[in-house]
Amino acid sequence: MNDIFLRSLLRQPVPYTPVWLMRQAGRYLPEYRATRAKAGSFMGLAQSPAYACEVTLQPLDRYALDAAILFSDILTVPDAMGLGLSFAEGEGPRFAHPLRDEAAIKALQVPDMARLQYVFDAVRTIRQALSRRGEQCVPLIGFSGSPFTLACYMVEGGGSDDYRHLKTLLYSRPDLMHRILDINAEAVAQYLNAQIDAGAQAVMIFDTWGGMLADGAFHSFSLTYTRRVLSLLKREHEGRRVPSIIFTKGGGLWLEDMAATGADAVGLDWTVNLAQARARVADGCALQGNLDPSVLFAPPEAIRAEVSRLLQSYGQHQPGSGHIFNLGHGISQFTPPESVSILVDTVHEVSRAFHVAPESAQQMT
Amino acid sequence: MNDIFLRSLLRQPVPYTPVWLMRQAGRYLPEYRATRAKAGSFMGLAQSPAYACEVTLQPLDRYALDAAILFSDILTVPDAMGLGLSFAEGEGPRFAHPLRDEAAIKALQVPDMARLQYVFDAVRTIRQALSRRGEQCVPLIGFSGSPFTLACYMVEGGGSDDYRHLKTLLYSRPDLMHRILDINAEAVAQYLNAQIDAGAQAVMIFDTWGGMLADGAFHSFSLTYTRRVLSLLKREHEGRRVPSIIFTKGGGLWLEDMAATGADAVGLDWTVNLAQARARVADGCALQGNLDPSVLFAPPEAIRAEVSRLLQSYGQHQPGSGHIFNLGHGISQFTPPESVSILVDTVHEVSRAFHVAPESAQQMT
Repeated sequence: MNDIFLRSLLRQPVPYTPVWLMRQAGRYLPEYRATRAKAGSFMGLAQSPAYACEVTLQPLDRYALDAAILFSDILTVPDAMGLGLSFAEGEGPRFAHPLRDEAAIKALQVPDMARLQYVFDAVRTIRQALSRRGEQCVPLIGFSGSPFTLACYMVEGGGSDDYRHLKTLLYSRPDLMHRILDINAEAVAQYLNAQIDAGAQAVMIFDTWGGMLADGAFHSFSLTYTRRVLSLLKREHEGRRVPSIIFTKGGGLWLEDMAATGADAVGLDWTVNLAQARARVADGCALQGNLDPSVLFAPPEAIRAEVSRLLQSYGQHQPGSGHIFNLGHGISQFTPPESVSILVDTVHEVSRAFHVAPESAQQMT
Repeated sequence: MNDIFLRSLLRQPVPYTPVWLMRQAGRYLPEYRATRAKAGSFMGLAQSPAYACEVTLQPLDRYALDAAILFSDILTVPDAMGLGLSFAEGEGPRFAHPLRDEAAIKALQVPDMARLQYVFDAVRTIRQALSRRGEQCVPLIGFSGSPFTLACYMVEGGGSDDYRHLKTLLYSRPDLMHRILDINAEAVAQYLNAQIDAGAQAVMIFDTWGGMLADGAFHSFSLTYTRRVLSLLKREHEGRRVPSIIFTKGGGLWLEDMAATGADAVGLDWTVNLAQARARVADGCALQGNLDPSVLFAPPEAIRAEVSRLLQSYGQHQPGSGHIFNLGHGISQFTPPESVSILVDTVHEVSRAFHVAPESAQQMT
C-alpha cells in the first residue's frame, strides 16, 4: 500500500510529495459522465455504493494519485435531517424545506445515522476495491461539509450569491444560528465517525462558504463548530491514526487560527503564498494545496512551471514538515484530462529533490 | 465644506471618523429607482450628466455622509475602446466584442478621452451642485476599475463564475495579457487625471476581481498595473493634494504589498481584522472599510453593535492614523434605507471618543 499521503498528513518523512485533487472523480472525466448517465442522476450516483465506488476509482485508473476520496455530496447530512435535497439539472442543489422560521429551527434534530447507511456502505465497498489494487492501493478520504457550510444551504435552501437569508439570521438571531450549528456539529461528528468505522483512513471537513463571513463572525459561527467536530472525532481506528484536514475557501487570513484547532492539516486556496503559510504555521500542521485549478487550462509547459513554483515555494522538507499537493478548490468540469497527468507526474518527479534531507532519507528505508 | 474625509485620507487629525458607502447611490433607494426609470436604462443614467448628478446627490439628502462618489460604471473605459457595452435587464454587463483572439488584442488602443466627455461633464456638474450645499458640501470621489478588473470583463465579455477565458489567456499567453494591461493602465491613468481636472477631489481604483488571482499572479497581473496607474496620477490639483484609494476585494492577504504602492488609503473587505490590518500597515496608509454589507439587514441594535465593534477594532487615533468607515463591498439593493441612517449616525457618534488624543484635539481647533 502507498501510504505517502497518510504519512505526509502526520508530518513523517516521505520520499516525494503526495498529490490528490479535490473533486478528482468528476465531470471532466468522460468515464464519470458515462457512469452518471447510467445512474440517471447525481443522487442516484451518490446513493448507490456500487456506482459511488466505480466513480471513486476512475481517476486512480488514469493517474498516479496518492489518495482516493469518497464520492458523495456534502449535503447528505441535511438531506437525512429531512430537508428534502434535490438537484435540478444545471441548477445546483435545492432543499424543499429550508430553515426559514424559528419553528423549523427548533424542530431540527441530529438525524439517525441509519439514513446515511448508503454512505458507509460506499466507504466499505471502496475500501475493498482499493485493497484489491495491491501495491497501488491508496488511502481513502472520508469527508463532510462543515457545520457552517451545511447551515448555509439549509437556511438559504440552495446556493446563493450573497447568502442574504443566512446572514440576516446570523446577525438578527444569532441564538437560532447557534442552535443550527450545535446540531450540525454533532451530526457531522457522528457522520465522520461512522465513515471512520466503515474504513475511511483520513477525514476532511469542507468549509466552502466560511470565507464569506466577516472576521470574528468566522470564528464564532464557523471555526468554533469545526473545532467541536474535531474534538468529537475518533483519532484512531484499528490501531492506526486517522488524520484530519480542514479547508475554508477564502480563509487564508485565519490560517493561524485554523492550525490551532489541532487538525493535522489545513487546506489552502490559491490566494495563499505557500512559503508564507508554512512560516505562519511553523510546521505545526501539514498544509494541503494550492494550485489555481485554472492552471490546468494552460499548455503543458505552463502547468509544469506553476507546479514546480509551488513545490519550490513550500521548499525543502525537514523533520515536522508536511505538504500534500492539491488544487486550491475543486477541479473544473472543463479541465482537459491530459492536464491532470502532467500535474500529477510533475509533482512526483520534481518534489523528490525537496525530500532529501539526510536524516529523513535514512528513516525512509 | 466638510473635508473630514480628505483629511482622514491624508492621515491628519479629525474630530470623528468619516463615512461613505460604496454604491451609496443605488437601487436600495426608491428615489434612485425613480430617476433610473426616467432615464430609461442604466447607461442612460450614467451618460447623462444631469441624471448622474441627481443620483449622486440623493444619498447626501438622506444621510450625513462625508463624501460623494461620482455615479458611473467601471466599464466606461472599455466601452470607449469600442468593445460595445450593454446591460441586459437583470443580467449584468455584456460586451459585444470581447477580446478573444490575438488580432483583437493587438488592435486594442487607449481610447480618445473625448469619448468619455460625459463622465468629465458629470464630475463638473456634481462639483457645482455640491458647492451649492455650503457647509454641507462634501468632497467628490472619482473612480475607475483597475486595469486587471477591466481586463476580466474585456476578455470574458461579461461577468463570470470562474473567469475561465481570462485565466486561460493569463496562463497560456501572459504576453497578450500584459499587452491588454499595459493599455488599460495608460487608459485608466488618463481617465482618472481627466476626472481630477474636472474636479474630482480624491480617486479610487476598484479591483473587484483581483482577489480571484493566485498569489504571485495577483502581483504580476493586477498590483503591478495599479501601481503604474498611481505613478501616472496627478498628485495635486489647484494647489490641493488629490488622495488615492485602492481596493481589492479578497485582497486581505496582500495588504502590505498594497500599502507599499504609495496609495493614500487601502480599502478592506469584511474578512480582514481591522486592528491587525492597522498593525500590518503600521499607520503607513489610511484604511477604508470594512463592515459586512449584510449587517444592514439586521435590526438597529445589531447594526450599532457591529459598527461600534469595528471602530473599537481600529482603536484610538494617533498622529499618522487614518480610518474612513465604509462597507467591505457595495451596498446591497435589498438594504432597508433606514439601516443606513443608523450606520452613519452611529459612526459619527461613537467615533468621537476615538479621536481625542490631546495633541490632535489641539490641532483641530
